[in-house]
Amino acid sequence: MKKTTGRVTLPSEENFLSETKELMERWGADALRDSDGTKLDDEIKQLDAKIYSTYFVARGNNEFAKKHPEETQQLYLMSKYNTAINQPLKIDFLDGYFLDQIKPDYLHNPKEWWEVIDRTTGEVVEPREWDVNQQTNEVVVHHAKPWHEYTVSFLAFMTWDPTHMYNHITNNWGDEPHDIPFDVRQPHSNQFAKDYLKQWLSENPDTDVVRFTTFFYHFTLVFNDLGKEKFVDWFGYGASISVAALEAFAKEKGYRLRPEDIVDKGYYNSTFRVPSKAYLDYIDFIQQFVAKEVKDLVALVHDADKEAMMFLGDNWIGTEPYGDYFKEMGIDAVVGSVGDGTTLRLISDIPHVSYTEGRFLPYFFPDTFYKGNNPAIEANENWLTARRALMRKPLDRIGYGGYLSLAYKFPEFVNYIEKVTDEFRMIADTIKDAKPYSGIKVAILNSWGKLRTWQTHIVAHGKRYKQAYSYHGILESLSGSAADVMFISFTDVIENGVPEDVDVIINAGDEGTSFSGGASWSDTRLTTILREWVYNGGGFIGVGEPSAIHHEGRYFQLATVLGVDKELGFSLSTNKYFTEEIVSHFIAEDMTELNFGEGVKNVYALGENTDVISYTDESVQLASSPFGKGRGVYISGLPYSQENTRLLMRAMYYAAHKEAEMKKWFASNINCEVHAYPSIQKYAVVNNSNDIQETVVYDGKGNNTTITLQPSEIVWEED
Amino acid sequence: MKKTTGRVTLPSEENFLSETKELMERWGADALRDSDGTKLDDEIKQLDAKIYSTYFVARGNNEFAKKHPEETQQLYLMSKYNTAINQPLKIDFLDGYFLDQIKPDYLHNPKEWWEVIDRTTGEVVEPREWDVNQQTNEVVVHHAKPWHEYTVSFLAFMTWDPTHMYNHITNNWGDEPHDIPFDVRQPHSNQFAKDYLKQWLSENPDTDVVRFTTFFYHFTLVFNDLGKEKFVDWFGYGASISVAALEAFAKEKGYRLRPEDIVDKGYYNSTFRVPSKAYLDYIDFIQQFVAKEVKDLVALVHDADKEAMMFLGDNWIGTEPYGDYFKEMGIDAVVGSVGDGTTLRLISDIPHVSYTEGRFLPYFFPDTFYKGNNPAIEANENWLTARRALMRKPLDRIGYGGYLSLAYKFPEFVNYIEKVTDEFRMIADTIKDAKPYSGIKVAILNSWGKLRTWQTHIVAHGKRYKQAYSYHGILESLSGSAADVMFISFTDVIENGVPEDVDVIINAGDEGTSFSGGASWSDTRLTTILREWVYNGGGFIGVGEPSAIHHEGRYFQLATVLGVDKELGFSLSTNKYFTEEIVSHFIAEDMTELNFGEGVKNVYALGENTDVISYTDESVQLASSPFGKGRGVYISGLPYSQENTRLLMRAMYYAAHKEAEMKKWFASNINCEVHAYPSIQKYAVVNNSNDIQETVVYDGKGNNTTITLQPSEIVWEED
Repeated sequence: MKKTTGRVTLPSEENFLSETKELMERWGADALRDSDGTKLDDEIKQLDAKIYSTYFVARGNNEFAKKHPEETQQLYLMSKYNTAINQPLKIDFLDGYFLDQIKPDYLHNPKEWWEVIDRTTGEVVEPREWDVNQQTNEVVVHHAKPWHEYTVSFLAFMTWDPTHMYNHITNNWGDEPHDIPFDVRQPHSNQFAKDYLKQWLSENPDTDVVRFTTFFYHFTLVFNDLGKEKFVDWFGYGASISVAALEAFAKEKGYRLRPEDIVDKGYYNSTFRVPSKAYLDYIDFIQQFVAKEVKDLVALVHDADKEAMMFLGDNWIGTEPYGDYFKEMGIDAVVGSVGDGTTLRLISDIPHVSYTEGRFLPYFFPDTFYKGNNPAIEANENWLTARRALMRKPLDRIGYGGYLSLAYKFPEFVNYIEKVTDEFRMIADTIKDAKPYSGIKVAILNSWGKLRTWQTHIVAHGKRYKQAYSYHGILESLSGSAADVMFISFTDVIENGVPEDVDVIINAGDEGTSFSGGASWSDTRLTTILREWVYNGGGFIGVGEPSAIHHEGRYFQLATVLGVDKELGFSLSTNKYFTEEIVSHFIAEDMTELNFGEGVKNVYALGENTDVISYTDESVQLASSPFGKGRGVYISGLPYSQENTRLLMRAMYYAAHKEAEMKKWFASNINCEVHAYPSIQKYAVVNNSNDIQETVVYDGKGNNTTITLQPSEIVWEED
Repeated sequence: MKKTTGRVTLPSEENFLSETKELMERWGADALRDSDGTKLDDEIKQLDAKIYSTYFVARGNNEFAKKHPEETQQLYLMSKYNTAINQPLKIDFLDGYFLDQIKPDYLHNPKEWWEVIDRTTGEVVEPREWDVNQQTNEVVVHHAKPWHEYTVSFLAFMTWDPTHMYNHITNNWGDEPHDIPFDVRQPHSNQFAKDYLKQWLSENPDTDVVRFTTFFYHFTLVFNDLGKEKFVDWFGYGASISVAALEAFAKEKGYRLRPEDIVDKGYYNSTFRVPSKAYLDYIDFIQQFVAKEVKDLVALVHDADKEAMMFLGDNWIGTEPYGDYFKEMGIDAVVGSVGDGTTLRLISDIPHVSYTEGRFLPYFFPDTFYKGNNPAIEANENWLTARRALMRKPLDRIGYGGYLSLAYKFPEFVNYIEKVTDEFRMIADTIKDAKPYSGIKVAILNSWGKLRTWQTHIVAHGKRYKQAYSYHGILESLSGSAADVMFISFTDVIENGVPEDVDVIINAGDEGTSFSGGASWSDTRLTTILREWVYNGGGFIGVGEPSAIHHEGRYFQLATVLGVDKELGFSLSTNKYFTEEIVSHFIAEDMTELNFGEGVKNVYALGENTDVISYTDESVQLASSPFGKGRGVYISGLPYSQENTRLLMRAMYYAAHKEAEMKKWFASNINCEVHAYPSIQKYAVVNNSNDIQETVVYDGKGNNTTITLQPSEIVWEED
């Protein structure tokens, strides 16, 4: 491959000048950055490269933070469940929390800001019925109902930034002071944050890009009394709470939030919860605030002739790159960690920025870079996974993090990254402005819609969850498939119908979650719009427990469309005859083995019109059903694999009655994919595996040739 | 074993006199019966044996039935779901039904007795908004809401008795007329049934026992348009419906039932549904009626100096042997089919009768008695399973069914049954009036309580259901265990608390079902009574989804008692640390392998107080937890096996804090059991397997000896 330069950011460190120059050369890097724990020395800063500098807005200034403890960031937290055994009931509401992180807020009157709830009935206990003992940190409920269970929702200060806390504990930083997060909603903090940035900008003339890590509020990350993670939600707005915020909310939205609106029975409005109106209002309110404040900071950066880059993570809460206010911030670039195709698209699809950058794996840390290990293997896996998505929507830049000196000691890795960076530039330069061909347009339908573009079924970023991986596979498959993908909410459908150009809708998730939809499926506007849409030719794919809410004898509200429903135990008396698998079916054509991951139990076909494609463990795993001119397809789960990527593509083309269209820009071999770019008359055939693959390649007219690809090879062709 | 006589009923048939005498002798039979398709000739009737004659009350007299078609039995049935695509919406409400069985009732005004329901909203459509076309058997909904789904609940005549229909279709009886069931609630039928019985009694002087098969209403059994079973519910009161019944109900209970009270969204009040008040009222109303009518028939039988025996099955609806009105009927005996220990106890525990009889397997039918097969094997399996239960509560008699001439051709079988009948008499004679020792008392807690004694998790009698077997194992284990078993309802607990002598409560089932309890768990009286009871020393065992209803952040409402809850996807953000299995635990002590059947996904331990005994597939399968002086035990499923029988016993003793009591009248080997009868100072050591077993046997004081048992041997000892 031709040696090229640019689009690559390297971490560097002190006393590493000549090696940095060498690696910049070999990897074609044109930007350098510091990392947590590394600094760039002046000589490095003078190299022919853009200089990124990590910047924290709301932490890392304890001198200031300690002067204004009342401006420390806050959280609403819920105690454990406490059974009323004796009178009075004493609740140690801090039980289980990490006292280095959490301090109860006694500055504001608990009677006004806290809530004691009888969880057996759901009733709020009148404030006159309880008191707080500030010496013992106990709530005393004077007349608790015997054997009922009570919780306390209390307002607390968060006295330690979660990322700093995590790094501190993980790396045994011992006496190093704890970074206290302060809240820019408060007057002193707000002023301080701006003044400090102004000063910093003037003191850092060599910096070209201010890499905000990130802005004001960390995603919710709460530790337990053993100093281990207790609660983590990458989307959690927990740390954005304060009395000031609650007061401002009431003023702006015209009603007061209850602690329960935030605490949410201990679920804290996890992204898996169907969002309440109060919560949607709240996050909208925070987003507006964050946008306004970020805009001010970005203006300062621009005034200093620098670029503002946002790290998508850590204190990213409220920025919502796919939200309504992101555009206003004026941010130049977003950088984020690329774990797979989904996270790549999460970054590369972000609108309203000049460029996006992905931080690739592995991190140059001793957990991967140790003697005897070959980091090139992880790099190759990461690259192949991410590359699929790059072919659909490339990042503008890639980069790495950690200790460059460590990576330097692994020559095979250095060689491999040299190839990767060249390949990345080849892709990015070639297709930068070319829209890839998509044979089909799919809308992911859930409670969140566009706001959570490429962000469904995530708890902690990059972590596998048994309850999520069988759904997450859908996004991962789509991230690199020749399909147009959009995310729509139930409200979108109810208010505007299904967008005109959508071929297929996917609804995927466990019953009751925001991704399946829960009570949204009781809304007859939703079900009637979708039934009509499918009947007139649309394709509806349900995965897991789609459209599920038990109502009027149905569990899947679109059972008639899907041709299947789930047995809850109430209709065992009704015989389920339709269990025979159809001999061959378009959807399963290339499959040698089917894997539905966790799947769903007790799904049955409604009648003889349902084509049962896979029936195992006495349950339908895969089926299709006609509904007027449209079709429903049911899949019990779809963990990511190349087989399932193909299965999903086939399911989409089948659902949309577009089977005849599938073999355009198409590879017969499931390990390969074809990406075509009509505007530049090019197409690429990609081998997603590490083995040699032979595949039939179909062009845009359906003509085909057979080609052989080397392991992980891309072949570019002119159309 | 000593040769004995009595307690055994044989089927016989025409022209089989000498062989009948021979088999009576060898098996010690003292009663003879006819069967479906066989008759006893006069010579046989003169043998020294009681004669049972099968008798049908409400069918088998088509001449009468055809004269009074308006008195044919009725059903409420629901149509399929029909999507309103075009206007008007025409609903072929008979679609899917078997027209040989079902005729719409046009004698009574559909506008008054039928219901059209918008299942998308749950709203009833005003009768003026629809009409019935009696020519096409269609309901026409004039202004259906587009894309809503509609059902019709219609009143139908059932023109073919379900058992007759089943036998007719299964055996290809061709032109044989269909038995039309008539309704003794109607005036002519009522009179006819009594007159006919009177006449029959006078014409059958040789009959000693009138074996009613059974009385008035068949359990719900509806066939589909292909003549196959469509809906079967062994507890279904479907066929007891009629306009007359509905009118009488309204008069008696003071309110009218809606069709939906019976149709129940197509679930037809399956025994798995938490019963509504209307349904409980309805079945109570039917039970009273049935009791009154049966009482009259029994009086006629008694007047003729004969005994009245009831077959527990077929048209048994409303008799409810464990209900409030059974006593009033004056029935002498109940006979039923013994499939396992549970069904044996279902029969043998029935109160208010002089004797009980079990019909053992195999049936003397060609499906088992064919050349090359050894029916003794099935007989042995059936016997070993049933014998466990016999040792706890013996039947008074056993019997067989089918063609005696067929059995006669299998000498090994004849030999085996000779042993079985002797062994049965030995057991029954020995322990007839002796209460077996029980070390522990357990109450099965569900919506039905006593009414469904030994009848939980049954759909069609004797059929395995994937959704039920992991719960049914509990009853099967208990049926032969040295435990006192009672069945209590949520209402019992709310009204009277937990009975004083109960050591352990078991709540087992899938969420929402009557056996788990569904919305009953929102009743704070229930949860507080149980929490207090366990706290003060009670044991609570939850199997599957016990106490489950999603409410205030908990799924298991007794989560705190059980020490576990189920993750629904809303609290994935909360780390679940407590996954490590405890090294050894009393409950799992004798287990080599654990089998939880279907189990339940995503169960997690609440905290460090929970002892996780088994954690597989990222889910707690078995755990215990202290709660005050009591304990909770969670088991994800308990299919029947000897291992699980032991596991359940251990779980009960552990939950009740009675571990030290367990090794009284106890066998160390899980294939063996000890049954002690203190009042007669005897005990039996039973080998439940077909292998030689060595076991330590503990007596009532805990002293032990080691003994060896031959395959399936019982050793009787004096205490």
